[in-house]
Amino acid sequence: MIKAVFFDLDDTLVDTSRLAEMARRNAIENMVRHGLPVDFDTAYHELLELINEYGSNFSRHFDYLLRRLDLPNNPKWIAAGVIAYHNTKFAYLKSVRGARRVLLELKKSGYKLGIITDGDPIKQWEKVIRLELDDYFDGVFISDYLGVKKPHPKIFQKALRKMGVEPGEAIMVGDRLYSDIYGAKQVGMKTAWFKYGKYADRELEYLEYADFTVERLEDVLDVVRGLNLEEEERADKEVHAG
Amino acid sequence: MIKAVFFDLDDTLVDTSRLAEMARRNAIENMVRHGLPVDFDTAYHELLELINEYGSNFSRHFDYLLRRLDLPNNPKWIAAGVIAYHNTKFAYLKSVRGARRVLLELKKSGYKLGIITDGDPIKQWEKVIRLELDDYFDGVFISDYLGVKKPHPKIFQKALRKMGVEPGEAIMVGDRLYSDIYGAKQVGMKTAWFKYGKYADRELEYLEYADFTVERLEDVLDVVRGLNLEEEERADKEVHAG
Repeated sequence: MIKAVFFDLDDTLVDTSRLAEMARRNAIENMVRHGLPVDFDTAYHELLELINEYGSNFSRHFDYLLRRLDLPNNPKWIAAGVIAYHNTKFAYLKSVRGARRVLLELKKSGYKLGIITDGDPIKQWEKVIRLELDDYFDGVFISDYLGVKKPHPKIFQKALRKMGVEPGEAIMVGDRLYSDIYGAKQVGMKTAWFKYGKYADRELEYLEYADFTVERLEDVLDVVRGLNLEEEERADKEVHAG
Repeated sequence: MIKAVFFDLDDTLVDTSRLAEMARRNAIENMVRHGLPVDFDTAYHELLELINEYGSNFSRHFDYLLRRLDLPNNPKWIAAGVIAYHNTKFAYLKSVRGARRVLLELKKSGYKLGIITDGDPIKQWEKVIRLELDDYFDGVFISDYLGVKKPHPKIFQKALRKMGVEPGEAIMVGDRLYSDIYGAKQVGMKTAWFKYGKYADRELEYLEYADFTVERLEDVLDVVRGLNLEEEERADKEVHAG
């Protein structure tokens, strides 16, 4: 019997990758507008390469971009990038289509809801609070806060313990086959892979750990209801057999 | 003959202190709303004390606030504070009353305009660009970028050299008697103290270095015109005497 549903945050509940792409494009556009002496495509592709090498949470993207382009460190250009980047992130932060309906329906049906996510705790909470998602959740578990990263079992085990459910009573929904699906399955949870965003065709070697694959977040409702219906039918049969 | 007018940025062109106070109040209010178990006044006064001790550019205000209140490090509360702080700063960033008119009039009259400011270069440029003030200025000189702080003469000298004017051909307008007025006077510039904001009654021991005191930014127009009128009259007299 499923009692708790856990969600990953980025690209599962929050449309992070799409937002980041918009924010980066707008940043470069604003840098060029304020005098960056390079065309948009050159600067944008250099930025993507840089993010690829240093990671998306690196705090000095625009600094390093100027170095890579052999340009002087001009704080005006950097400020123009920072402004457009932040404005975009604040104005266009959106939940994934269907997310709010799924959470509401699950909540109404009495399920416990949790978030299990990697990332900087303050930044992750910023997304949750800005989208006013916090009231839906009984627990938010952020791996950096525990000193581990998904798929480390510690974060899943802590979430289960804090929410008072057994692994078999919980399902994990996430876009990453490795960190979300393989991770949750390792500790005995049910798993639903949300085939969405840039990881929709990656890490397929972990596909075997997904009990379900959904292409729309709303399909999670059917998955959870289906699992509990099966369980009820089995209980019924056992009663009749007994 | 005055050819160039230099302005300080914070609390001269940009209403920084008022904005910071609003942002801090809103931050505490949002932290309490998201569960900070302390009343507004206690938390707000603790924050003011902290800023007083660590300075307003310290990056871990909310972290340290929780420590001072003997509370656990809860990223949700910190995120709530960060969101409200940033939202306020982005939504309410305003130029000082009259600033835009003064800049426009001076520009129309053919004066060179510059900014001489302390602070983090990227953050200072952010304010200039967000308020779309950048097109008014022929030069923006940020002390941290040169490794000094006002009233160090280096920043004033560099600004004069870059703008191609002699010290006697330039006037500095700023709210700080020590850093702006004493600083500019040291290198031989004319000075107009803008008696405004939290420094309106401080550092009065440097008042003797102010050639003029203005209580409205728009009065800078009269100061500059008055100086040049005097100069013209003197030149006229010399011609007639000659």
